[in-house]
Amino acid sequence: MIAGPIRQLIKEFQRLPGVGEKTAFRLVMHVLESPQPQAQALADALVEIKQRIRPCSRCFQMTEEEVCAICASPKRDSSVICVVEDQASLMAIERARQFYGIYHVLGGRVSPMEGVGPGDLRIAELLKRIEGEGVKEVVVATNPNVEGEATALYLKRALEPYDVEITRIARGIPMGGDLEYSDALTLGRAFEGRMKY
Amino acid sequence: MIAGPIRQLIKEFQRLPGVGEKTAFRLVMHVLESPQPQAQALADALVEIKQRIRPCSRCFQMTEEEVCAICASPKRDSSVICVVEDQASLMAIERARQFYGIYHVLGGRVSPMEGVGPGDLRIAELLKRIEGEGVKEVVVATNPNVEGEATALYLKRALEPYDVEITRIARGIPMGGDLEYSDALTLGRAFEGRMKY
Repeated sequence: MIAGPIRQLIKEFQRLPGVGEKTAFRLVMHVLESPQPQAQALADALVEIKQRIRPCSRCFQMTEEEVCAICASPKRDSSVICVVEDQASLMAIERARQFYGIYHVLGGRVSPMEGVGPGDLRIAELLKRIEGEGVKEVVVATNPNVEGEATALYLKRALEPYDVEITRIARGIPMGGDLEYSDALTLGRAFEGRMKY
Repeated sequence: MIAGPIRQLIKEFQRLPGVGEKTAFRLVMHVLESPQPQAQALADALVEIKQRIRPCSRCFQMTEEEVCAICASPKRDSSVICVVEDQASLMAIERARQFYGIYHVLGGRVSPMEGVGPGDLRIAELLKRIEGEGVKEVVVATNPNVEGEATALYLKRALEPYDVEITRIARGIPMGGDLEYSDALTLGRAFEGRMKY
């Protein structure tokens, strides 16, 4: 008894991650009540992003250009490459404004569970960049979980034959965190990575 | 340093209720990684719903037709009108499949805080229907909160001059609920509304 376009939009919203039936329903109610241009703007943005965005030919981050703004920027230190798993990690680092080198997006992580091996990641592309771009340091910034650590270890071995410094982002107690509630693995890393004070 | 279309889609997602910066970001990452037709389908559904959906001329629920499927159905008892605040309430009742009459969507609730008075709701339209449609019962199904109760009370007074039975949905302990954790107001209503067993 519910109109087709309403059911359809509920269905499409439910395909998004973390959106269940109730959330989809709430979103549709919002769209029904909001002015037409707002729904149109969201629709246009969805089409635009798929039409205009592609991977940078150098670092593989998502961009509108052949070479992304970070790779093309004269302000970025192109002798330091930060290797990340995906666009989400890259954007988190950019938001923090704490890194002024350039990136390399692997396009995933080593995950035997999901059938992803090192050959499925952009590691050959990284090695080619190291040969040709005068890279001095590679900061391995994969996530500090089982798969990210495995990926980091694989990268370390692949990079060892090259004349570059290989570094790994520090793992430890997050700022604002509490030792009392930190897990053993994190505490272990915090001690392992302790620095002269 | 982030591409325009990505920033744009994050912005548009953030206009949706309950979607903050982090959620919007996660949704955009999903769209970037999902196949183009899926993003297109969501975009199309958004455009469609605004183009094709309008209020039913009789009950004001959202529909593609002049008169909605519920109003047009010979299986629904048109002598019983359930008055709801909005489309969301109507759809919740429809999902439950416990009501076989027809509806009247007020388009809101009396809310002095938001500057919504009875004149802003479709009450005149309801009275006109009662005069012309041979209605026997009006079930007031506004939400059991301050504004919904105020709206219900206003409706009761507006409907009293008419030869219709006015009923209000029961308020009490929800099924699966627990007396221990019920608030005093709900318990009060549960006793007030007790029935012969």
